[in-house]
Amino acid sequence: MKAQTTAIDAEGARVAAGDLAATMAALGTRARLAAASLALAAPEQKSAALRAAAAALRQDAAAVLAANAADLAAAADLGPALRDRLMLDESRVIAMARGLEEIAALPDPVGAVIADWTRPNGLRITRVRVPLGVIGIIYESRPNVTADAGGLCLKSGNACILRGGSESFHSSRAIHRALVRGLVEAGLDPAAIQLVPTKERAAVGHLLAMSDSLDLIVPRGGKSLIERVQRESRVPVLAHLDGNCHVYVDQAADLAMARAIVLNAKMRRTGVCGAAETLLVDARAAARLLPPILADLIAAGCEIRGDEATMALDARVRQAHDADWDAEYLDAIIAVKQVSGVEGAIAHIARHGSHHTEAIVTADEAAARLFLDRVDSAIVLHNASTQFADGGEFGMGAEIGIATGKLHARGPVGVEQLTSFKYEIYGQGQVRP
Amino acid sequence: MKAQTTAIDAEGARVAAGDLAATMAALGTRARLAAASLALAAPEQKSAALRAAAAALRQDAAAVLAANAADLAAAADLGPALRDRLMLDESRVIAMARGLEEIAALPDPVGAVIADWTRPNGLRITRVRVPLGVIGIIYESRPNVTADAGGLCLKSGNACILRGGSESFHSSRAIHRALVRGLVEAGLDPAAIQLVPTKERAAVGHLLAMSDSLDLIVPRGGKSLIERVQRESRVPVLAHLDGNCHVYVDQAADLAMARAIVLNAKMRRTGVCGAAETLLVDARAAARLLPPILADLIAAGCEIRGDEATMALDARVRQAHDADWDAEYLDAIIAVKQVSGVEGAIAHIARHGSHHTEAIVTADEAAARLFLDRVDSAIVLHNASTQFADGGEFGMGAEIGIATGKLHARGPVGVEQLTSFKYEIYGQGQVRP
Repeated sequence: MKAQTTAIDAEGARVAAGDLAATMAALGTRARLAAASLALAAPEQKSAALRAAAAALRQDAAAVLAANAADLAAAADLGPALRDRLMLDESRVIAMARGLEEIAALPDPVGAVIADWTRPNGLRITRVRVPLGVIGIIYESRPNVTADAGGLCLKSGNACILRGGSESFHSSRAIHRALVRGLVEAGLDPAAIQLVPTKERAAVGHLLAMSDSLDLIVPRGGKSLIERVQRESRVPVLAHLDGNCHVYVDQAADLAMARAIVLNAKMRRTGVCGAAETLLVDARAAARLLPPILADLIAAGCEIRGDEATMALDARVRQAHDADWDAEYLDAIIAVKQVSGVEGAIAHIARHGSHHTEAIVTADEAAARLFLDRVDSAIVLHNASTQFADGGEFGMGAEIGIATGKLHARGPVGVEQLTSFKYEIYGQGQVRP
Repeated sequence: MKAQTTAIDAEGARVAAGDLAATMAALGTRARLAAASLALAAPEQKSAALRAAAAALRQDAAAVLAANAADLAAAADLGPALRDRLMLDESRVIAMARGLEEIAALPDPVGAVIADWTRPNGLRITRVRVPLGVIGIIYESRPNVTADAGGLCLKSGNACILRGGSESFHSSRAIHRALVRGLVEAGLDPAAIQLVPTKERAAVGHLLAMSDSLDLIVPRGGKSLIERVQRESRVPVLAHLDGNCHVYVDQAADLAMARAIVLNAKMRRTGVCGAAETLLVDARAAARLLPPILADLIAAGCEIRGDEATMALDARVRQAHDADWDAEYLDAIIAVKQVSGVEGAIAHIARHGSHHTEAIVTADEAAARLFLDRVDSAIVLHNASTQFADGGEFGMGAEIGIATGKLHARGPVGVEQLTSFKYEIYGQGQVRP
């Protein structure tokens, strides 16, 4: 691959052709040093840095918006959805600042004693939360992730190296400047939050190979990005995949509750990972339960793709094809299938689900128990909407995504999930027999 | 690579040339099915299987020993240390059986409610421990690992695929048969514990690529094995590396305590990962503290490799070279260096340590606090021997190794560390505003 010189704005570091490897290595070295000091920073110092960064963002809103205007102008061929993700306005800048203040107000996870016990030989063993170290975050052109990810890493005592999408390069740099001002004002190492100072795509490949400098990589974005990261990374990856979430309406469901939950799970916001993509209905009660649910969805503008039994209930239902059971529409479309009770629902989810979030609506406690026990997903709900799959709704404050893997973190990834722990053991001279 | 037919003993599955891929895929499919049922098995059923396996091992001891004799005869060119690891005798078989009984007696980790809170909207959120799924264990020719690893995976509700070293092939098969008898007697799927039925080395490469069938790979063995697994695996890896463990003796150490701890940390067993490899001594007190400590070690048969200041204290000290500070001797050798107080010790460990286990000996609480806070290791001890780095000593029952990474598990890996969790959420019809 040919290295390519990339123009960097006036204040930024300049990355000459061929210097990318050195630039990335330097980021890693600075991050390791910053992580060592950040791990020991007082909770108040980190909170102060977050509040100062929020203040700087508010103060510099005009500069951030100007940088964003430049990004938007250069990305004229972006589709409307991506353009909306890239676009900032004053209220979005203020929302970022408020997000940083909310992270500042969270309890500090570092140093918390998670477990504490004493052995028969008198050794006292404590398990204490510590930061992971250095976290690399690779994301698409959503400038607000710069603030969210930087803030969450700082709160959890981790240094981070941020690599945003190239279309959001100037916006991210402007936001990053505010974060650095916050760090400096609080007396923390400005290298605690670093942004890759170049648009060169090869920078991602370097990050994925920096196993000496990085303890974790979190990719945020579409499937192709995440799959590339999982395939190539030499650094451990915490993957935040989309969700093919299911709602199962059991024959013992309360109809009014089922209508409210299905409508909310699908239509409250269709683009979030906790949005329902498939509705499963107990075939024994479908004739009674399904028509009003379908009518609600259609009235709200949702397209229905159903199996034959469902098509027979409403002429507006289109035919579902095999691919629909695996689809994550992230849109106002839902696949609907009639299944043979809770066992049928569990079997369908085992085959087509993505281990993210699934809900059962039923008044039958035994059916609910079976569903919650046997559905192998990060989040399983009884009589509640799948749209609660969110760190904020869990009371965790901000989140960096929903982990669909089973190792380290599962479900919403907040500041606690960005930590590890160590065992601190207190003796009085004990030796092992 | 040329596929090669391998003789399998009379009862075993036969793996014909070229069929390895199909054999491995079939193991994966059976393991997934077994994992689904095992995740729901009652605690008593798993314990009964473990006790029945222990009974079968005792009953079949003669067959196990005969298989082991065949392995030993075929491995005539093995060095004495590896030969000792491969060798079984009646007491070792009984120790394996007792290990299974101890695992049976542990609390069952699956289904434990780790957290339970209610949100202002009435949603009750619980965090419940669940198995990881299917675990692959790749180990060297230590037949007892077959029983330990199989037992720990079963207790934690995980199906497993075991791949032992080829020199222990027949021993592992004989032990595996006892485990399967235990599963069958307790009414569990015999595929819950599978052993790769061939010595073909290419089987390891297949395992490392089985990301659909395996949720985790645990390599147990030397550095080259672990590095290969970390490099090649498409499945998440929980690595159990050796430890370059340090003891730091501070100027405020009680001399008698320091002598006892250093001697134990180095010499109790030199081949375990928690054995001390480097002794750091506060330069301000070395003239007083170090001579009796060195005399103890030398009297116990330990070779000393010291820096110049240490060589000046005892003529029997050999010169340490740069490589000694990074060495994991796993032998009766220790590197000794004088450092500038606790800060000097922390800096040395940051540079040369392996993030495993380090101890400080001191009566100075402030120095101990600094050491415990700033040394970035899985286990840090104040006034106790590094040889306590062991799941059994932590009260966790058996362990599968010590994790030196920071993700998911850190420190001793027991049954709890082989689990994940899910969020079970109980609502009364809540939808998200």
